[in-house]
Formats: sequence, structure tokens, C-alpha cells
Amino acid sequence: MAKKEAKKLDELFHNTLKDIYFAEKKILATLPKMEKAAQAPQLKRAFAKHKTETEGHVTRLEKVFAAIDKRPQGKTCDAIVGITDEGAEIMKEYKGSPALDAGLLAAAQAVEHYEISRYGTLRTWAEELGLNDAVSLLQETLDEEKATDEVLTKIAESVVNREAEAA
Amino acid sequence: MAKKEAKKLDELFHNTLKDIYFAEKKILATLPKMEKAAQAPQLKRAFAKHKTETEGHVTRLEKVFAAIDKRPQGKTCDAIVGITDEGAEIMKEYKGSPALDAGLLAAAQAVEHYEISRYGTLRTWAEELGLNDAVSLLQETLDEEKATDEVLTKIAESVVNREAEAA
Repeated sequence: MAKKEAKKLDELFHNTLKDIYFAEKKILATLPKMEKAAQAPQLKRAFAKHKTETEGHVTRLEKVFAAIDKRPQGKTCDAIVGITDEGAEIMKEYKGSPALDAGLLAAAQAVEHYEISRYGTLRTWAEELGLNDAVSLLQETLDEEKATDEVLTKIAESVVNREAEAA
Repeated sequence: MAKKEAKKLDELFHNTLKDIYFAEKKILATLPKMEKAAQAPQLKRAFAKHKTETEGHVTRLEKVFAAIDKRPQGKTCDAIVGITDEGAEIMKEYKGSPALDAGLLAAAQAVEHYEISRYGTLRTWAEELGLNDAVSLLQETLDEEKATDEVLTKIAESVVNREAEAA
């Protein structure tokens, strides 16, 4: 029983790690498109900054894979594919519209929240599995994702207001 | 310009409302399966309680549609389809495993975070559009989603720990 439990939570941890590794790579490929599409300079800067952070998240995940003696590997994550597809649709449909930034922000915050839930879950499981190095690595990224979400909320409030005032 | 801006944010608000309306209905159909699959009694209770809350969220969304003179209508939300598909996969793969509850909790928290991001976005836009009734309705649901996420975090910590201790 003890072995089965350990094996199973291990397995779930490893699978979810593959899921978020795929997601981070997908986000890394998407952020430059969002940066290019964004109209407000502060939003462009936020996407550029988050791209650099995301590179760090990928590196941290590779260290977590190493901590469980696995090679870094992604597994298609339908959720992040769905979220980024919705973002791509907005970029297309709202091109040239003053509401484009609002739409980009909504997509970006959906991405952040997906990541916040995944990193929170992985950190809890890493604690349980006694993977202390993994706990620190996952916590660091979790804190950055939460901070990014807060920055995006502030931009969302100011961008939407400013664009409405300018209209 | 003013009209274009107003029209575009209106449109984005209406589209995103259709997205979350679809998502809430999908969640309503999924929660009984999660309740049935859950092993820990407190997790079963949390899913049952959240189902009742979700019915209230659907009703509130219908009032928001009414506030913008639209009929309630859903639009396929790929993100929530992806998240619930991942949850269904976990229910199948981890059936009978002590790690099943941990997996169900991870799926449920991904759902909650998706909703938190959507309701946060919609509330900000409703404020900007001067839809005061909608702001209150969206804020109420947002608060409930955040509270549910906190409850799930606590259960996740206790369930994972207790199951590991029992193993």
C-alpha cells in the first residue's frame, strides 16, 4: 500500500510536470506575438519582461525533472492550447481595435491563472514527496506568476480606463 | 472613435460572457462526476456545495445578459473543454488509486483559476462600461470562486497528507 501510494503521487507529479513544461514552452512561443500585437507601451514591456521570466521558469522546471531523475519532456496540455487559441482569435478579430489590449490582457491573465493553479498543486505535492529542492524552485516560479498577474491587473485597469478616456 | 471604442469593448464583454456561460454549464455537468469519483468525504461535500453555488453563478450570468439586453447564450470555450478533459482523463487513469483525490483537486483548482481570471476581467470591463448591476453580480461570483479555491487548497493539503500517512 505504501509503495502504491508513493508510486501514484510520484506519477501524478511527473505527469503534471510534463503538462506545465509543455505549457511554458507554448507560452514562450506565444509571448513575442502578444508583445508585437500590444498597443500600450507598458503592456508591450510587461510581455517582454514576462518572456524573460518564462525562460527562467523553463530552466527551473528542467531542474525539477533532474531532481526526480527524469529527462525534461512535455506532454500536450489541452487547457493551455485552448487558452492560447482563444488569445490568437482575439489578436485576429480585434486587430486595429482600441479594445485589442483589453482582450490581450484577458488572455494573458487566463494563462497566468492556469499556471498559478498548476504550480500551487505541484508545490503541495513536492512537499508531500519530500522533494525539498523542487519545493523551492516551484515556489519561486509561483511567486513570479502571482506577481505578473497583479501587474497585469493594474495594467488592465489603467489601459481600459485610459483608452476609454481618450475615446 | 468614441462609438467604435464603446462598441468594441461591449462586444468583447458580450463574447467573454458567452465564454464563461458555456464554461459554467460545462462545470455544472462535470461536478456530479467529480463528486461521485471523490474518495475523501470532505472533497465529496465540497464538490456538492460547489454544484449548488455554480447553479447560482449561471443564474447571475443570465441577469448580466439581461443587463445588456442580450439573451443568455454560450460559445464553446476551448480552455474549459481542455481543463475538464484533463480532469476526465485523471478520473479514468487514477480510478482506485489513493492519488485520485489529489488529481481531482488539481483539476478542480485549474477550473477555479480559469473562472477567477474570467470573472476578474469581466468585472473590470463592466465597471468601465458603467454596468453597475453587472459589476455587483460578477463580484459576488468572483468572491465565491476565490473562496472555493481556498477551501480546495486546504483540502488538498490535508487529503494528500492524510492519505500519505495512512499508506
